[in-house]
Amino acid sequence: MAGKVFFSVTMSLDGFIAPEDVPFEDVFSPEGQSDPRVRRWLAKWSELQAWVFPLRFFRENLRLGEGGEEGIDNDIARATFERTGASVMGRRMFDAGELSWPEEAPFHTPVFVVTHTARDPWERPGGTTFHFVDDGIKSALDRAQEAAGDRDVRIAGGAETIQRYLDAGLVDEFSLTLAPVLFGTGIRLFDHVDPDRLALTQSRSEASSRVTHLTCATARR
Amino acid sequence: MAGKVFFSVTMSLDGFIAPEDVPFEDVFSPEGQSDPRVRRWLAKWSELQAWVFPLRFFRENLRLGEGGEEGIDNDIARATFERTGASVMGRRMFDAGELSWPEEAPFHTPVFVVTHTARDPWERPGGTTFHFVDDGIKSALDRAQEAAGDRDVRIAGGAETIQRYLDAGLVDEFSLTLAPVLFGTGIRLFDHVDPDRLALTQSRSEASSRVTHLTCATARR
Repeated sequence: MAGKVFFSVTMSLDGFIAPEDVPFEDVFSPEGQSDPRVRRWLAKWSELQAWVFPLRFFRENLRLGEGGEEGIDNDIARATFERTGASVMGRRMFDAGELSWPEEAPFHTPVFVVTHTARDPWERPGGTTFHFVDDGIKSALDRAQEAAGDRDVRIAGGAETIQRYLDAGLVDEFSLTLAPVLFGTGIRLFDHVDPDRLALTQSRSEASSRVTHLTCATARR
Repeated sequence: MAGKVFFSVTMSLDGFIAPEDVPFEDVFSPEGQSDPRVRRWLAKWSELQAWVFPLRFFRENLRLGEGGEEGIDNDIARATFERTGASVMGRRMFDAGELSWPEEAPFHTPVFVVTHTARDPWERPGGTTFHFVDDGIKSALDRAQEAAGDRDVRIAGGAETIQRYLDAGLVDEFSLTLAPVLFGTGIRLFDHVDPDRLALTQSRSEASSRVTHLTCATARR
């Protein structure tokens, strides 16, 4: 039996999952660090993701060493990782990650990259292999589900890829970690999704002292 | 000692607190009910507010009769009402309410309406008196705080009025009831607020089976 298809992202209270678009080459280049736009981008991104960095699971998964916080946030981060048998991501997220992930990429499963450009699989130490799928989102999902077995498939991002899967009715549920942050501008999670075709039900909601984790099941309507 | 200044609204997961703007004269007129735009507005509004209608407190407060659901949602709706010693609202919200509230308006406290047009106080049965304040949002808040005594002042709405108070640093905390609904378009809660001047901290978060109630404290930065 196939697992679920889900996404899990951290969202600002005003609905953004990333600050405004700046070229990721700038974000990850040494020169970029002195660019005010990049500094602002990094400051906002860090504020949004602040709940993740202290977690024991985060440190463990990125091989940053011992220690870190336990508790609800950590349990949820770990459970999200453990349920994931394979991930799907967009080309832009992959390109950014290629510049920023450590050699041992933090997925430790097959990852299917939706792209227009064929490329041989790219195997990383630690169990992550990137497969490049150039025949559409459904094909990438089919391959991810096959690879995941009875575990779940995570649509990892970015926003545009999540929106395409959500709008196509291919997402079973999603989890939002709501961070007490306002962005004002940036990349909205739910743009380009037709709300009239999507019925949501809150299936779980729990909070730590910092953030709220809310899960919704989706159905077509 | 003065109470807190707060607002409390129900928000869609994509950040809207009302469907797109339609003239409220249309929404509340008999002819309007057959207008497809009005029907759509009412359907979306009802979906957003669906958690409220079954509550015991809602029925009680609008004198709709006995019965209704108890539980977390009801406790929160009641506590929000009981903490409120006075409300502030914008002129547009008042105009819409004047057409739709029952004779016994559901506030049962003084309400200060921010307006450009002076008007004598309007006293309703059941303890609601509307006062019309034509010298700015700070003045309306001062008068509301004086009327509220040691209870809290609620910025009742609409979105524009909430945004003005929030952006002026006059809101101490706010509560969002997050409903599992997407609107796609409509009136966004956090538009026209400068996020760089506002630091948020999650102070409470609890969920019923339907919705999540999230409270944030605000600070200037």
